[in-house]
Amino acid sequence: MSLLDYFKTSKTSSASLAKERLQILVAHERVSKDQPTYLPQLQKELLEVIQKYVNVDRNSISVSFEQNDHQETLELNITLPEQQANKF
Amino acid sequence: MSLLDYFKTSKTSSASLAKERLQILVAHERVSKDQPTYLPQLQKELLEVIQKYVNVDRNSISVSFEQNDHQETLELNITLPEQQANKF
Repeated sequence: MSLLDYFKTSKTSSASLAKERLQILVAHERVSKDQPTYLPQLQKELLEVIQKYVNVDRNSISVSFEQNDHQETLELNITLPEQQANKF
Repeated sequence: MSLLDYFKTSKTSSASLAKERLQILVAHERVSKDQPTYLPQLQKELLEVIQKYVNVDRNSISVSFEQNDHQETLELNITLPEQQANKF
């Protein structure tokens, strides 16, 4: 299953709620666990970029960060305000 | 299945290749299909942010963009150079 398939299968239930949502996922597969992580810093910058395009309430962001020897994943789930105007 | 589970299940085969990879996925669930899309522009800015942290060869980036009435998904798959140094 590809990542895009994952989103397709999860689409129906989400769409029925008629909420506008933005989901961002970053996965970093590392060869060595000794490398420094930059995902937490990256997260801040990603949010700054996102906020150029949409109005994001900080309380509407849920963040998950997981780390093991070979992989780090950062997941941001953002529920956008109803009937918001895009910023451009 | 959560998104993080998806990455966990796909981890084993990828790790065995000992390639360092970065995968970024953005899914935008929209209430109305009449809204303008900003994901292609967002993609450029995301790559600019990523390049602050890692050396990315443009030829090592694969991009998928899919769009339907209620969802847009942008997927970036980046294979990082072997034994690269992080930029910080």
